[in-house]
Amino acid sequence: MTARNDRADAPVRIAMAMGDPCGISPELAAKLLARQDVVGGAAILVIGDRRILAAGESAAKVTLDLPVVRQAAEANLGPGRPVMLDLGHCDPASIKLGEASAAGGSFAMSNFRLALELAKAGRVDAVLFTPFNKAALKLAGNPYEDEIHFAADVLGFHGPASEFNVLGSLWNARVTSHVPLAKVASLLTRESVLGSLVLADQAMRMAGFDPPRIAMAALNPHAGDGGNFGREEIDVLAPVAAEGRARGVAVEGPFPADTVFLRAKAGQFDAVLTMFHDQGQIAMKLMGFERGVTVLGGLPVPICTPAHGTAYDIAGQGKANVEASVQAFLTACAMGEKARRARAA
Amino acid sequence: MTARNDRADAPVRIAMAMGDPCGISPELAAKLLARQDVVGGAAILVIGDRRILAAGESAAKVTLDLPVVRQAAEANLGPGRPVMLDLGHCDPASIKLGEASAAGGSFAMSNFRLALELAKAGRVDAVLFTPFNKAALKLAGNPYEDEIHFAADVLGFHGPASEFNVLGSLWNARVTSHVPLAKVASLLTRESVLGSLVLADQAMRMAGFDPPRIAMAALNPHAGDGGNFGREEIDVLAPVAAEGRARGVAVEGPFPADTVFLRAKAGQFDAVLTMFHDQGQIAMKLMGFERGVTVLGGLPVPICTPAHGTAYDIAGQGKANVEASVQAFLTACAMGEKARRARAA
Repeated sequence: MTARNDRADAPVRIAMAMGDPCGISPELAAKLLARQDVVGGAAILVIGDRRILAAGESAAKVTLDLPVVRQAAEANLGPGRPVMLDLGHCDPASIKLGEASAAGGSFAMSNFRLALELAKAGRVDAVLFTPFNKAALKLAGNPYEDEIHFAADVLGFHGPASEFNVLGSLWNARVTSHVPLAKVASLLTRESVLGSLVLADQAMRMAGFDPPRIAMAALNPHAGDGGNFGREEIDVLAPVAAEGRARGVAVEGPFPADTVFLRAKAGQFDAVLTMFHDQGQIAMKLMGFERGVTVLGGLPVPICTPAHGTAYDIAGQGKANVEASVQAFLTACAMGEKARRARAA
Repeated sequence: MTARNDRADAPVRIAMAMGDPCGISPELAAKLLARQDVVGGAAILVIGDRRILAAGESAAKVTLDLPVVRQAAEANLGPGRPVMLDLGHCDPASIKLGEASAAGGSFAMSNFRLALELAKAGRVDAVLFTPFNKAALKLAGNPYEDEIHFAADVLGFHGPASEFNVLGSLWNARVTSHVPLAKVASLLTRESVLGSLVLADQAMRMAGFDPPRIAMAALNPHAGDGGNFGREEIDVLAPVAAEGRARGVAVEGPFPADTVFLRAKAGQFDAVLTMFHDQGQIAMKLMGFERGVTVLGGLPVPICTPAHGTAYDIAGQGKANVEASVQAFLTACAMGEKARRARAA
């Protein structure tokens, strides 16, 4: 494997970490790698077990011919020629399709860890992973709350980071996520909202938006109707938007949440900053469930994954839709390219 | 005007109350009445001022030729022959397009009141109104919180009633509405959720669903993830769904709110019962902002209106999209027809 390569004309280098082997991840990896029109321009290192990828090929009814290495250092990466880093750590006979297992969680976690380490060492420009299963990760002893915390720890990164949902060129960031709805309002402080706003701005600049046009969603119905249905818009959100603008963030709002996505969809904004999980997820999933991408943003390395899960119910049947993986791959390439150019400059 | 007419072969009778004259309501009424393919089968009484309707015709670039009466009792209603009840109470010269005014609010309110009184007397089967403006209603001294409370009072109805959002054949009911998001969780009690569920079931049966297949949306992200992100699903929603089923309501859930509308859109459900305003509105507006209908359900009379507002910014320009009014009219006809047959039986 070549060392750092920051030449402007070099192909973007992607580490593709294979996800949970008991779901649709193996067939997604196989389908994606078979799409030369999508992956041909990038230099790809696939991290996993050749036997698991072979199972994915079988399910996807595609055949991949890719060189296999045992050590990352042996990989001679180049465009149009993905290389498999075979860690030989998961025998398909040892796992059961459609069931969360420690073996599956351990496989996904070690692939992801290695991808992150290669990125940290500057040997790849971005990381793509196929879906993980939270229950399997837990069975494998993963102590992290989510992929972000795992990645931040491996990368030795201590700043703020967040999950973004991306659909085509529309991004969705959120201030709160996996918390009870009853707690959302109390978690919206100047610090939390401003922090999320600035992080979204930074992560999107890293992805090529200069500057991203961000719409802030309101918390309450009709954006609080002038204080009649809640005062968070008046007391917190509008002041934070003003403060963001003073810092150079192109933010507008707060806007009523039930129409802000219509405006974003019409191209008026590049991103919507939502206040809680479902506020954005309802909209993003309706607009494109099949092609949603999750970006772990704010970290020093671009990390992308399809927004859907491991879909245990259809694992191994070849039915899995590869479109979100294609979009995640393309987003990883665009962000990795930008990161590489930034380093080269 | 003929008295009660409950013969099975009689045309459905619709009172069309003209809404706020300063917005797009006049041109919507004109455009709708010009659509013989939509309105031809119904017996329609248009309630308003002939001069305001003429202004709407002018904006919409259509010409209506309809008999004018001064008293409801004089109207000889029949299919394909809308009659105008001209109350002569609003001179177009006395109002200003694009601005909320007491005159405009008063016009809309008195038209709606008369339509409701005719419905209460059994002289029409359903009421349709074009958009009101809340600020104008307030300027006109309207003391009611919303159209539902106004209608219930005029109809002398004291039971539960609620606003429903309808898109094609998909309904959305909600447990809470114009309240701060911070209060939503505490307002979800066995009584409030069960009441909304039973009301949705009843209103939809009145609209011809037998029985309606209702999906209950969860409150928390991932439906609470087994209690990790909130317990309302476990403590309140699932027990209410079970109680609803025991009472004969075809309800399933609670389901994660970010995918339940995808399932409903795919035809798996006739309605989604949402826990708060934007949970449903984000989805419904994304799926069909241009053609959404609001039904005031639970009342003894079917009342429908387009879901959008008065659009002061484009008033008088003829740009207003009539599709939601068409859908509201057709829903009013279907519900009025069903109500008439129920009375005749």
